Amino acid sequence: MVSRANKLALWRLAVVLLAHFVALDGGVAVAAAKPCRSPSSASVDDAGCLSWRVMVEANNARGWRTVPAPCVGYVTSYMTLGQYKRDLNSVMDQIAAYVDIIDADADGLDAWVLDIDDTCLSNLLYYESKQFGAYDPSAFKMWASKGACPGIRPVLELYDTLQYKGFKVFLLSGRDQETLATCTSQNLESEGFSGYERLIMRSPEYRGQSSSMFKSAMRKRLVEEDGYRIRGNVGDQWSDLQGDFVGDRVFKIPNPMYYVP
Amino acid sequence: MVSRANKLALWRLAVVLLAHFVALDGGVAVAAAKPCRSPSSASVDDAGCLSWRVMVEANNARGWRTVPAPCVGYVTSYMTLGQYKRDLNSVMDQIAAYVDIIDADADGLDAWVLDIDDTCLSNLLYYESKQFGAYDPSAFKMWASKGACPGIRPVLELYDTLQYKGFKVFLLSGRDQETLATCTSQNLESEGFSGYERLIMRSPEYRGQSSSMFKSAMRKRLVEEDGYRIRGNVGDQWSDLQGDFVGDRVFKIPNPMYYVP
Repeated sequence: MVSRANKLALWRLAVVLLAHFVALDGGVAVAAAKPCRSPSSASVDDAGCLSWRVMVEANNARGWRTVPAPCVGYVTSYMTLGQYKRDLNSVMDQIAAYVDIIDADADGLDAWVLDIDDTCLSNLLYYESKQFGAYDPSAFKMWASKGACPGIRPVLELYDTLQYKGFKVFLLSGRDQETLATCTSQNLESEGFSGYERLIMRSPEYRGQSSSMFKSAMRKRLVEEDGYRIRGNVGDQWSDLQGDFVGDRVFKIPNPMYYVP
Repeated sequence: MVSRANKLALWRLAVVLLAHFVALDGGVAVAAAKPCRSPSSASVDDAGCLSWRVMVEANNARGWRTVPAPCVGYVTSYMTLGQYKRDLNSVMDQIAAYVDIIDADADGLDAWVLDIDDTCLSNLLYYESKQFGAYDPSAFKMWASKGACPGIRPVLELYDTLQYKGFKVFLLSGRDQETLATCTSQNLESEGFSGYERLIMRSPEYRGQSSSMFKSAMRKRLVEEDGYRIRGNVGDQWSDLQGDFVGDRVFKIPNPMYYVP
């Protein structure tokens, strides 16, 4: 039994909740169309997808091939309605606090390693169009060839800060060098990522190797052969951040869209 | 301008949202009392606390001394209203899937390492009473001395499975051995954690060392001196799971209550 006073309180609460939704989603239309899809909504289903997303970020969920079917709507909402941006900005704040307390030595050997896909450049439009389905190498190659991936602004700001402070920035990507080098460097350039020290992509000898092994080998070379000190390492995949010579500090950019081993 | 039809749709949505809240919090009273405190609610403030929590789980936020003041209510709700349980169970499912595909060798050297505090035994009651404030060694010691930490049931189930499958389970804790060994082993026993291979606590020579260094040293001994193979490692802190000899696979149990370096 609900008293009259309680009923009124409930209605008032409903209005407050509704106001929250509208504020969060930036528009009534979106809120009305997808009431249960926002990661911030109270649906139990979403709470399960939230658990899954946190497991991905904590590297507890590994080797998954696609976003679980019940979470496709959740991931779309997460990426587009604000929470991804908030999460990303929070991580960038952590990186900024760390960058603030370190300096690049005059010898020019203090380096940062940044991943490209969904670290510097966003593939959200592509993965959304594929409904976060299984990896499709030729379709992805076609998408990447266009050189039209939007830059991820908060990462560009970090990139500029690092260069301003005298760090050498290495962009390290598992993309195929032979076929994607030109479009990738043009895409980076057009999105403001210019003046990096080196763009390192997957050469033919590393084809078929896991990203983790390939990137470990590249970092090993930077450190052991070239003498760089990797002061920071930023990527959206744990395979960017684990293995050998990962650097003094690693930062995981959120990405619930796909998993790269 | 909102049309009459849209207005109706919005009210209907509000009712749906309200129903979700009531269902999730298990009662109207809770939902009405704390509309903005549930991690699943749509408050922008909570969304910021969600970002922070995910950063903790992904090891992006390090060295924090207390839960950020605006997130104390959020963390309380997270830990008590269901999402922590859901997150924990999701991680346990991942562990179970991994345990399913590995076997313990007949030589008796396949081992698992489990942390104790907020992995096997819960300190939620203590930290909640302290409002997730700064670490207070003597107060925590008094709490631990009671030997009354509730066991964490899903971890106990894993513990039983591991023993059933023939793995040797090592409980590895940064708790002080001299003062807390007896109450800790009694607490474990009373909560069902019996028959472990060894309870390893911090002996006087490791006092003052970081948990990460102490635990690395203990694992190194297990592997190099005793010949064990660490097949899995479960902890609520990244310092349980990083360093040397971490094991074939590590699993991070959620804990937004405190940070141990």
